[in-house]
Amino acid sequence: MRIGELSRESGVSIPTIKYYVREGLLPAGERTKFNQAQYDETHLRRLKLVRALVEVGGLSIAATRDVLSLMDAQTSDLARLGKAQYALTPRREHEPDEAWEWAGEQVDGLLAKHGWKVSRNNPARLQLAEALATLRRLGQDDYLAMLDRYAEIVGEMTTMEVDGVLARRNLDGMAEAIVIWTAIGDSMLTALRRLSQEAETVRRFGETVFTAEGEQQD
Amino acid sequence: MRIGELSRESGVSIPTIKYYVREGLLPAGERTKFNQAQYDETHLRRLKLVRALVEVGGLSIAATRDVLSLMDAQTSDLARLGKAQYALTPRREHEPDEAWEWAGEQVDGLLAKHGWKVSRNNPARLQLAEALATLRRLGQDDYLAMLDRYAEIVGEMTTMEVDGVLARRNLDGMAEAIVIWTAIGDSMLTALRRLSQEAETVRRFGETVFTAEGEQQD
Repeated sequence: MRIGELSRESGVSIPTIKYYVREGLLPAGERTKFNQAQYDETHLRRLKLVRALVEVGGLSIAATRDVLSLMDAQTSDLARLGKAQYALTPRREHEPDEAWEWAGEQVDGLLAKHGWKVSRNNPARLQLAEALATLRRLGQDDYLAMLDRYAEIVGEMTTMEVDGVLARRNLDGMAEAIVIWTAIGDSMLTALRRLSQEAETVRRFGETVFTAEGEQQD
Repeated sequence: MRIGELSRESGVSIPTIKYYVREGLLPAGERTKFNQAQYDETHLRRLKLVRALVEVGGLSIAATRDVLSLMDAQTSDLARLGKAQYALTPRREHEPDEAWEWAGEQVDGLLAKHGWKVSRNNPARLQLAEALATLRRLGQDDYLAMLDRYAEIVGEMTTMEVDGVLARRNLDGMAEAIVIWTAIGDSMLTALRRLSQEAETVRRFGETVFTAEGEQQD
């Protein structure tokens, strides 16, 4: 197919497709004798994935490139699955203050308490520490007190997810599931959480908290 | 305190503080006779919150301004709590294709099945639909099959959160908790999920998936 059809099928504009090709997120189309680029189903599939990671998963272009190159690595090395998962975690500067030190100890303590074996290289350690340090700096100790129970609850989800990944028949299918479920799953979970927060509040108090007068409740 | 001390105490650079003042996220300091701006503890507290929402919560400047103005509204109107929560949800363009229509029906069905009463205005409906449509477009139906169980599990977290918010003694404290817990809680949950994914994989297979040879497991 030509780029116009690729654009229609994927919902991605032509300039954005060209940008993704330049950035190495999408292989270039094959040049025909009329100097037109031809694309096929593998391009369409990849383009849908790029769009999902960037637009819904919120990944940067650089992170998306890293994730895709780990997904694509033609190797039976299991470690690429873990590295692809690591590449999905945002990395930020952190401030090495008292709250940050305290948070690092909390993360170590949590992992030990739940018997979670996690590499020192997992960037989610820093992401969790940053969240805990932020809550501490803002004086939200009552929320921090829920951390242990959250870890247990998240563990229930993860058990299902790992079962699901393992049901895939080959490494490529597993890599695809790890990348998509981790990235799009974040958005699914945070949306479910907001809906559930409203539903739980309405259950206890009626509709006054979330609905102004004259608005419709579903 | 002067702006230099505010910067040191908050970990936010002086140019960024000035930017936040210009954007209306932080009240200007009080001008002294030497034409220097003086800041106090309320500025420091607000600046820490802005930093948390922007840097850790990933909110845009515009969304942060909306959230703060709803938090600050001097009214006993309960609806401002719900509106502040809505303002924390990212809003994106969506593509009205077959997957999007299907996803909207799934969201309605899920809410009905779990008895979750949620306003039509809650933007998390669109966020969830977008995640489901994306999974559908990518052919990840096995992950979609976990949605119901996820909703139940998320409901357990939310019950704790609503209990915690209600333990706050006044509306301002509740508004603060809703905003901070929702925004920073997203980051805490997604980090916990990644750590738990590695731990669960290691539990089943040993350390080969996440640790290359020669690397240290904790």
